[in-house]
Amino acid sequence: MIPMTPDALTPPTTRPTRAELLAQIEAARQERGLTLTDLGAQLGADRVWLGAALHGQHPMPAPMAASLLGLLGLPESGAPVLTAFVSRGSFEALPPTDPTVYRLYEVLQVYGPTLKTLIHEEFGDGIMSAINFRLELGREAHPDGDRVTIKMAGKFLPYHWATPETN
Amino acid sequence: MIPMTPDALTPPTTRPTRAELLAQIEAARQERGLTLTDLGAQLGADRVWLGAALHGQHPMPAPMAASLLGLLGLPESGAPVLTAFVSRGSFEALPPTDPTVYRLYEVLQVYGPTLKTLIHEEFGDGIMSAINFRLELGREAHPDGDRVTIKMAGKFLPYHWATPETN
Amino acid sequence: MIPMTPDALTPPTTRPTRAELLAQIEAARQERGLTLTDLGAQLGADRVWLGAALHGQHPMPAPMAASLLGLLGLPESGAPVLTAFVSRGSFEALPPTDPTVYRLYEVLQVYGPTLKTLIHEEFGDGIMSAINFRLELGREAHPDGDRVTIKMAGKFLPYHWATPETN
Amino acid sequence: MIPMTPDALTPPTTRPTRAELLAQIEAARQERGLTLTDLGAQLGADRVWLGAALHGQHPMPAPMAASLLGLLGLPESGAPVLTAFVSRGSFEALPPTDPTVYRLYEVLQVYGPTLKTLIHEEFGDGIMSAINFRLELGREAHPDGDRVTIKMAGKFLPYHWATPETN
Amino acid sequence: MIPMTPDALTPPTTRPTRAELLAQIEAARQERGLTLTDLGAQLGADRVWLGAALHGQHPMPAPMAASLLGLLGLPESGAPVLTAFVSRGSFEALPPTDPTVYRLYEVLQVYGPTLKTLIHEEFGDGIMSAINFRLELGREAHPDGDRVTIKMAGKFLPYHWATPETN
Amino acid sequence: MIPMTPDALTPPTTRPTRAELLAQIEAARQERGLTLTDLGAQLGADRVWLGAALHGQHPMPAPMAASLLGLLGLPESGAPVLTAFVSRGSFEALPPTDPTVYRLYEVLQVYGPTLKTLIHEEFGDGIMSAINFRLELGREAHPDGDRVTIKMAGKFLPYHWATPETN
Amino acid sequence: MIPMTPDALTPPTTRPTRAELLAQIEAARQERGLTLTDLGAQLGADRVWLGAALHGQHPMPAPMAASLLGLLGLPESGAPVLTAFVSRGSFEALPPTDPTVYRLYEVLQVYGPTLKTLIHEEFGDGIMSAINFRLELGREAHPDGDRVTIKMAGKFLPYHWATPETN
Amino acid sequence: MIPMTPDALTPPTTRPTRAELLAQIEAARQERGLTLTDLGAQLGADRVWLGAALHGQHPMPAPMAASLLGLLGLPESGAPVLTAFVSRGSFEALPPTDPTVYRLYEVLQVYGPTLKTLIHEEFGDGIMSAINFRLELGREAHPDGDRVTIKMAGKFLPYHWATPETN
Amino acid sequence: MIPMTPDALTPPTTRPTRAELLAQIEAARQERGLTLTDLGAQLGADRVWLGAALHGQHPMPAPMAASLLGLLGLPESGAPVLTAFVSRGSFEALPPTDPTVYRLYEVLQVYGPTLKTLIHEEFGDGIMSAINFRLELGREAHPDGDRVTIKMAGKFLPYHWATPETN
Amino acid sequence: MIPMTPDALTPPTTRPTRAELLAQIEAARQERGLTLTDLGAQLGADRVWLGAALHGQHPMPAPMAASLLGLLGLPESGAPVLTAFVSRGSFEALPPTDPTVYRLYEVLQVYGPTLKTLIHEEFGDGIMSAINFRLELGREAHPDGDRVTIKMAGKFLPYHWATPETN
Repeated sequence: MIPMTPDALTPPTTRPTRAELLAQIEAARQERGLTLTDLGAQLGADRVWLGAALHGQHPMPAPMAASLLGLLGLPESGAPVLTAFVSRGSFEALPPTDPTVYRLYEVLQVYGPTLKTLIHEEFGDGIMSAINFRLELGREAHPDGDRVTIKMAGKFLPYHWATPETN
Repeated sequence: MIPMTPDALTPPTTRPTRAELLAQIEAARQERGLTLTDLGAQLGADRVWLGAALHGQHPMPAPMAASLLGLLGLPESGAPVLTAFVSRGSFEALPPTDPTVYRLYEVLQVYGPTLKTLIHEEFGDGIMSAINFRLELGREAHPDGDRVTIKMAGKFLPYHWATPETN
Repeated sequence: MIPMTPDALTPPTTRPTRAELLAQIEAARQERGLTLTDLGAQLGADRVWLGAALHGQHPMPAPMAASLLGLLGLPESGAPVLTAFVSRGSFEALPPTDPTVYRLYEVLQVYGPTLKTLIHEEFGDGIMSAINFRLELGREAHPDGDRVTIKMAGKFLPYHWATPETN
Repeated sequence: MIPMTPDALTPPTTRPTRAELLAQIEAARQERGLTLTDLGAQLGADRVWLGAALHGQHPMPAPMAASLLGLLGLPESGAPVLTAFVSRGSFEALPPTDPTVYRLYEVLQVYGPTLKTLIHEEFGDGIMSAINFRLELGREAHPDGDRVTIKMAGKFLPYHWATPETN
Repeated sequence: MIPMTPDALTPPTTRPTRAELLAQIEAARQERGLTLTDLGAQLGADRVWLGAALHGQHPMPAPMAASLLGLLGLPESGAPVLTAFVSRGSFEALPPTDPTVYRLYEVLQVYGPTLKTLIHEEFGDGIMSAINFRLELGREAHPDGDRVTIKMAGKFLPYHWATPETN
Repeated sequence: MIPMTPDALTPPTTRPTRAELLAQIEAARQERGLTLTDLGAQLGADRVWLGAALHGQHPMPAPMAASLLGLLGLPESGAPVLTAFVSRGSFEALPPTDPTVYRLYEVLQVYGPTLKTLIHEEFGDGIMSAINFRLELGREAHPDGDRVTIKMAGKFLPYHWATPETN
Repeated sequence: MIPMTPDALTPPTTRPTRAELLAQIEAARQERGLTLTDLGAQLGADRVWLGAALHGQHPMPAPMAASLLGLLGLPESGAPVLTAFVSRGSFEALPPTDPTVYRLYEVLQVYGPTLKTLIHEEFGDGIMSAINFRLELGREAHPDGDRVTIKMAGKFLPYHWATPETN
Repeated sequence: MIPMTPDALTPPTTRPTRAELLAQIEAARQERGLTLTDLGAQLGADRVWLGAALHGQHPMPAPMAASLLGLLGLPESGAPVLTAFVSRGSFEALPPTDPTVYRLYEVLQVYGPTLKTLIHEEFGDGIMSAINFRLELGREAHPDGDRVTIKMAGKFLPYHWATPETN
Repeated sequence: MIPMTPDALTPPTTRPTRAELLAQIEAARQERGLTLTDLGAQLGADRVWLGAALHGQHPMPAPMAASLLGLLGLPESGAPVLTAFVSRGSFEALPPTDPTVYRLYEVLQVYGPTLKTLIHEEFGDGIMSAINFRLELGREAHPDGDRVTIKMAGKFLPYHWATPETN
Repeated sequence: MIPMTPDALTPPTTRPTRAELLAQIEAARQERGLTLTDLGAQLGADRVWLGAALHGQHPMPAPMAASLLGLLGLPESGAPVLTAFVSRGSFEALPPTDPTVYRLYEVLQVYGPTLKTLIHEEFGDGIMSAINFRLELGREAHPDGDRVTIKMAGKFLPYHWATPETN
């Protein structure tokens, strides 16, 4: 058990909510002209992972949270918000209405069953993990207009009925 | 205008519905043990594109439809079904319930806004086209278990208010 | 009252359902290579209106129904189906999943409130009728790629509280 | 990397939220009797595009945001809100309940599949872009009552499977 | 208890389903050109009530069912279907997509709370019964175009907490 | 262009929101015991139309807004809220849960298709306008309990394909 | 018309909202340990009816509202909130998630059509009124554990097509 | 293990589906004029329980299934359908559209939270079981019109955290 | 009846809302590094049950509420919030979007009907109670990576038609 | 490439659909009185896994499919249906309406966030796999009535940003 000295702690009500803090971070990023690539480079974090953390989808290690707040001129009281337990998920409306995000959903509508079929044929009955996973955004030059590339890489997890005997 | 000789044409009612034909194709593929990779190699088609066509998401050129039906021992009356106009979309239930497909949706829930932010920062205000587009499924070897990779590449389309004067 | 001679009438059960008939019409159009523009020219009908009728959204005048069935080599028993009372509406899934149709919905998501504001500012509080209405599809040539144009024209209907005294 | 001097920046919390700012702009427009056409003329912007920006659907260039706020007597602190990254989409309820906006949705319900068919027949398998796009509202005089016209023009994008070899 | 002689009864499977019978009635009405007003006059039934019965919303008295089937040249085996117990409700999609029906729903969206307020102010806290009820469709002549009138009349039912003592 | 003197205008933020103002109006009506009939008589407005305006469904002419606020002892700053552009629609939940309003929805579920059929038979293929429209609430005396009557009257609008040639 | 003296009235903004007032009542009930049975006994009201009023489902007579606020030590300004017009309905999520309430919904899923059948067989085609209605909660002792009993009693309302002639 | 003699068994495909069998039972009940009360009396079953079984909500004991089919003149092949495992639930649309059933849902909307509160106050934190449960339909005579009564009785189940130690 | 001394009671408005209090508890837990296991040990409560109480799913006994607030350095005014009546249910979005929670939902999608079948075969027609119930989280060591185990144990409740005679 | 001899293969249309085959299997199981436990013992398969396969949630190895069909007296043509690729998911309605299955969903509503919290505290930020997983149904004897136990065991998968450098 951790010893506690309640009086020495920050009163919980001075903490911003996660939504307030994320809006402050967006505003500070815009004012300073800091892209996710810039921030990732300064914080030593992958820019996609960092973007997800700044959209409330991953908890941040404490030193990175402190560096981030310092870099953006925001008060330290936001740190425990960035490091706290997160409940993931980004969309209230289904499907997402923003056209840039919708196109990713459209890819799923048009190619989802094909991806399942190919994973089945290439790897067997199972899934691509979205937990042991990375995502990269890139650019593919082309005379008719550059292409956005998105690469997902997730560990293949075969369906495995894990009876104790077979461990 | 094309001259018409109605009597010489196949009566429309002998045609299978698209759902019936696709089920027959699936069954024939299973019996012959033909993967999408096998079929794509024989038909000279990209396996992801072909998979989408076999899930009713792309119309097929007439020679390819004829070859496919021959390869699978299915009657020629299915050809116009494969080459016909398609209304795209794969899911009746939202989100998709199959775990392999759901993980792709989960990626969208967790990383969708980050992808939008990065496209915005790297390319400007716009979208990754899902029309001028390709998708590749691959494998990344790893000692702890191979990874499934999915690569999307779509032309970047910037928001452009196309007034006639600016053309 | 119209005199009736029941025995002389077609038995109702030989009639195709609307869905069956529309599928037969689609198949016959595909086999003969007849576009909506071709059919409209031969039947003396606007191609957009005709397309809507062939998607089950408008009832057809009896002479046009007879000509259409003749042109496509389909049995006359389909005529009362084409001329019957229709219950309009095309989508079961909301929003529509097909990408071509979805883009029209996306226009509504992005520009719908602006169109309302502009109708209000230009015409007053009211609506653009979708009943006293026409729709045209066109092409606008452009060196970077032609543009699809869609023009809607509907009578402006101002909100009018039609008390009997003010008639 | 952009040099940063945090202390000199506006504190993020004095910024209005986007919803607050857009409500202030609507109120100021109403008080001054400024239509979108008026504002577009003064700001040198297309009135439909501007309307969408004022409904939170497009980010605004910084000089236009400054001019707009000046014209409406609103504080400069709103400028970064108008120029910030936007997540697009207007409707929480589906379909939209307002009758003026609903009629546009009804057009989609009645004519959507016809528009897809005609685009397919005239241009091939593809879509009308809603990104490389413009929209015009007009008036068509008529003795029985003028008509509202809405013209959409979007680049035709054919389905193209963009394998690296075919670039 | 009613004595039963099973063998003498119509085998249940020769009975049409309700959907089949209603489609046959619609087709026979169309072929004979019989409006609901015509049918109501011949059967001695209110045309609105009859229309609801023919849309599967009210069970029909046995003599009327027999007369109706005779009038339309349909087999007697449909009679028990018309007289059977009904589960009411017309729409699968919500709100209804047909424009004629949608306008009634739009009236509810725009004026529903006002009707509640006025019923409350005029009659007290309660409802207009939709069970002890009638509905009339009429025409109101007008030089600018006739008006459709719809009149609902339902017994006012005040909220009454019916404790046994107060009966 | 309207000359503007920004400093002389009411600061936008002192304006109540529409929801706040409508709640204040309801409270003031309750305290003064003013029914919609009373208010309509004093303001020279139809009580149903006025009720809809007080539920946020119609914009109010400026003189009526001023009179209404005076009558209810509310500050003048509410006037531009009452006269502003409205986005119509009353229900968040579908169908409406309030029993008085639900009965109107139930009428639509049970009689909606019949009303469409009768409009079709009596007037032709078209709709009853909900824009050029009035609604009346009345009372029909009856020994077993009075009846609530609701009368809708809307201009008949026939489906008309408004090609420019036929104007 | 009621004479009005605006200045003498309570300013509308000091009134609690209904949600605030109901939360205060719940808190005061909890602090004083007052059950609905206790309150009903003191106020002379049926406890089920009173519970519904305290959940915002029935307006309260003015003397009862005054007594209730006095009994709970709450300010008189809440009285007009309790006596005001109510829009009924308790659930935002459908079906309700709370297990105690869900079981009532489950009864409807399992026994709803049976109850309709039995009402039809016992009383004829019609409904049990939920307006002229009462509800009782009781206890049935049993050696294996007492049972909760819920008794609904509502006037039977037969479907009656109320043409003016038949009144 | 039960010995099996496959050849002696009824081929599975001659069995009606549950939906077919229940429709046949409804038709046979209607033809014979047999109410649920009649059937319950002859089969020795509670009429509410029996009604639920005939709506596919309870499996039937084999002797009762045999008696029921004999009584209704239906083939014995339906017996295993009536005795089979059931997946419960009656409504596809939510809320139910039939007015008789909807009123029960309305009771839940208006009184559901009150019933929870009263169960809590009278019995403690827990539920009324819908499994150890009965339902009775009755009639309460009244000079102004008889009342339908519905009585639910379910065992009270208190929330109990059943750790092994406390058993 | 309990005597009441209103003035001596805490004014209801100083009470935090449940959402505010639960957020304060989460923040205080995070600052003190107190896990549910730690808190359960100090409060003498099962950690799963306690977690549910801290997520607003169970009311807490008064002494435990007081201890908890003391332990976390939070004001006593939160105690009645923790002990108050709860309306259960955790998800607004369906299905839950968080991946950890979604996997539990996926288990239900894949194995739900099987669990019903096995409960039926092993115990008879009935349910596993979620009221007389416990839940345990554990760990199963394994060389390839430890496993999370979740054990549910709920009393079997057989369907029992509880007529008064059979009690 | 596998050599193909189309003529020698079973024609695809003689194959039952998966739904037809699963219904035949259920019927045959019922007629033979074979529980999942019996079948699992005879086929050497875990009964939960087998139940899921018989509900269409797992593909079956070919020898097991052959044994199963033989055991149940069903034709061999069903074998490829049982071994084919599956798209998983059991519920069309959400949440599931069957009470036995609903209770599992209720556990998720009441304890889902607690399970996430405990997994986080015990294992770290990650999930319990539903792919590398097993499920057991058991019985816990108890004097007051036996308990159903359900044990899930799934590999813990920590969130891991799998950049190629860190492999």
